[in-house]
Amino acid sequence: MSPRAFEESPLVVGARALWREATEAEFLSAIRDGNLPHDVFQRWLVQDYSFAKGLASFQAIAVAKTPRPAQKVLIAGLSALDAELDWFEHNARKRALNLNAELHPTSRRYVDYLVSSAYTQPFEVLLAILYGVEASYLCAWCALEASGPYAEFIDRWSNAQFVDYVRGLLDLCNRHTHELQQEEFNEVLRHERDFWRMTWEG
Amino acid sequence: MSPRAFEESPLVVGARALWREATEAEFLSAIRDGNLPHDVFQRWLVQDYSFAKGLASFQAIAVAKTPRPAQKVLIAGLSALDAELDWFEHNARKRALNLNAELHPTSRRYVDYLVSSAYTQPFEVLLAILYGVEASYLCAWCALEASGPYAEFIDRWSNAQFVDYVRGLLDLCNRHTHELQQEEFNEVLRHERDFWRMTWEG
Amino acid sequence: MSPRAFEESPLVVGARALWREATEAEFLSAIRDGNLPHDVFQRWLVQDYSFAKGLASFQAIAVAKTPRPAQKVLIAGLSALDAELDWFEHNARKRALNLNAELHPTSRRYVDYLVSSAYTQPFEVLLAILYGVEASYLCAWCALEASGPYAEFIDRWSNAQFVDYVRGLLDLCNRHTHELQQEEFNEVLRHERDFWRMTWEG
Amino acid sequence: MSPRAFEESPLVVGARALWREATEAEFLSAIRDGNLPHDVFQRWLVQDYSFAKGLASFQAIAVAKTPRPAQKVLIAGLSALDAELDWFEHNARKRALNLNAELHPTSRRYVDYLVSSAYTQPFEVLLAILYGVEASYLCAWCALEASGPYAEFIDRWSNAQFVDYVRGLLDLCNRHTHELQQEEFNEVLRHERDFWRMTWEG
Repeated sequence: MSPRAFEESPLVVGARALWREATEAEFLSAIRDGNLPHDVFQRWLVQDYSFAKGLASFQAIAVAKTPRPAQKVLIAGLSALDAELDWFEHNARKRALNLNAELHPTSRRYVDYLVSSAYTQPFEVLLAILYGVEASYLCAWCALEASGPYAEFIDRWSNAQFVDYVRGLLDLCNRHTHELQQEEFNEVLRHERDFWRMTWEG
Repeated sequence: MSPRAFEESPLVVGARALWREATEAEFLSAIRDGNLPHDVFQRWLVQDYSFAKGLASFQAIAVAKTPRPAQKVLIAGLSALDAELDWFEHNARKRALNLNAELHPTSRRYVDYLVSSAYTQPFEVLLAILYGVEASYLCAWCALEASGPYAEFIDRWSNAQFVDYVRGLLDLCNRHTHELQQEEFNEVLRHERDFWRMTWEG
Repeated sequence: MSPRAFEESPLVVGARALWREATEAEFLSAIRDGNLPHDVFQRWLVQDYSFAKGLASFQAIAVAKTPRPAQKVLIAGLSALDAELDWFEHNARKRALNLNAELHPTSRRYVDYLVSSAYTQPFEVLLAILYGVEASYLCAWCALEASGPYAEFIDRWSNAQFVDYVRGLLDLCNRHTHELQQEEFNEVLRHERDFWRMTWEG
Repeated sequence: MSPRAFEESPLVVGARALWREATEAEFLSAIRDGNLPHDVFQRWLVQDYSFAKGLASFQAIAVAKTPRPAQKVLIAGLSALDAELDWFEHNARKRALNLNAELHPTSRRYVDYLVSSAYTQPFEVLLAILYGVEASYLCAWCALEASGPYAEFIDRWSNAQFVDYVRGLLDLCNRHTHELQQEEFNEVLRHERDFWRMTWEG
């Protein structure tokens, strides 16, 4: 399955223009063009780490609410996220970055949204939210070639293993539909769009 | 670290007679003596599976509330529990057992306790609860030799990997103390005691 | 509407013998016959207060999950419960009883059940649980005449205002049905039955 | 106690310039000057109603987590909020406004923040959040004279009963301090500031 194939999934199609807004960003273009400012990269790394910690809470609550066997996909995803947080910490140490910096208001609002949803929405809706988070990140990064100084970063969110995970989430959304899925999928994309903008603009 | 070494941990010592009540059971003696009734084994398997599903919810909520790096131990434990549920399902299929049987009132009260605590107690207390669940199971099973028709079952809760996990939980309890840990650790042991009795008596 | 009319509601009819077990108790017979032991009354008062504090948490979570206008009935019930807790405290002071005594295991399991359900069940099921708690208490007490040394207690759970509240809950259950309502209504009755037994037997 | 006296409470003083940003708004100046555009008033009414529904969820969860007697103040506040929601509905009907309009992104992020905090923060922090919400609203409105076409609205959030409630919340914050109170109090003020701007700008 090509990453681009996700763009034909009903939720992506239903999101219309929001999908493009959430998956194209000046930050990504600058990586492609080889002119990403250093401080912009650092801001992204610190904020994405903080976001990922919030996402871990979201996924954990989602695990608690999701029945087997769908739960298995979420538990595997939580383990992968744990490894990703290690990787962020390793990268931050190498670059002497402070990962305990304050959450940017934009990141915080995204995390508030995820945690609030985790506790209040049925699991079917949580599946669509997680699919939105991961599918948009996959499609944003896989538009870049995994080469240059950020090859390791590009590869992380466009490799075959990540594609498999996102396909697993899509399968779950298709099997467990809910009338609120599109609305919340769209809300995720709005937060993704704002997150990329914050990364670029500060 | 010998499994028996856990019995010198402060929480086990503080539980006094409750520890023995939670880790010795007619069910276990019957395995050792080779006279476990078939229907008792089946009841145990079905109820322990249902309990483990409830425990997975507890652990997932605990993951959401626990900061890194303590969170890492809990996520690894959740993956192991997921594999354990697979293993239960495999064993039940082999024996044509119905895993969707109703929860016995005793199992249900144990799960109600875990889920209620997960949502309302601070993470330090959740660590002590999980240590209680796992350390008592380890010490209950490792009193048996891993041989005979139930060798695979005995091994599962007395092997070196499980010992490492329980030690990881003990370390977390020691590093994150809380005045309510002993009280809730004891409550776990009461539920363990009642669970073993139910297994035997129906 | 006579209190007895609730006994024709579908959930009560569906509970069969459990309803009688939950609403008839040696404790209540002893009040009627004028031979309730002093220490039994005191145990009931202390445990019922602790239970009511747990019920307040249950009702508060239920308020958070229930949409308007159904939410209004639950908020009014929460205010009434707050006044009831004041009344318990006033009664305990008059009798020099210690309300901070430990929860009896039977009370604790009832509260664990309520809190666990509050966080994990959909609001329609929470409505049936609350109806079970209140309707069974109403019918238990209104079998007694509000006279004698416990007249004030009997009146509290059999007066017209309480009947109105229980009718409000019944209306909500009828308007917001859910396939799990009967199962959880029955579970409440099992806890009520065990609570009354604990009150009598200690 | 004069409403202005709250401005000397430690949390307000600690918030510095944020307090003024959260309590002064073009919307309020326009009411005072008698030139509030009709559509701006309508937007405020619809969004404030939706916000109040989210606040009711926050307060209910806070009730569940707060011990007596502090809990009593929150339950009384929840009843008052329920009456306020009735009043909003009555006002909207009179003006033929649709209260089920979509939440503005700014309102939604405020509610996401409240609900996420309700489930994850200790009760002491929830007290500071609620004090922030109510004290800032009190001080914003009581800067206006309760006369003119919006007299009823001004009076609602500046009358003696509301002052008493806010004083009750301040007392609770003073009695139950927590190191995170200032940080979250400030976060509330940022949301208040953004809410007023959204009201004016759309």
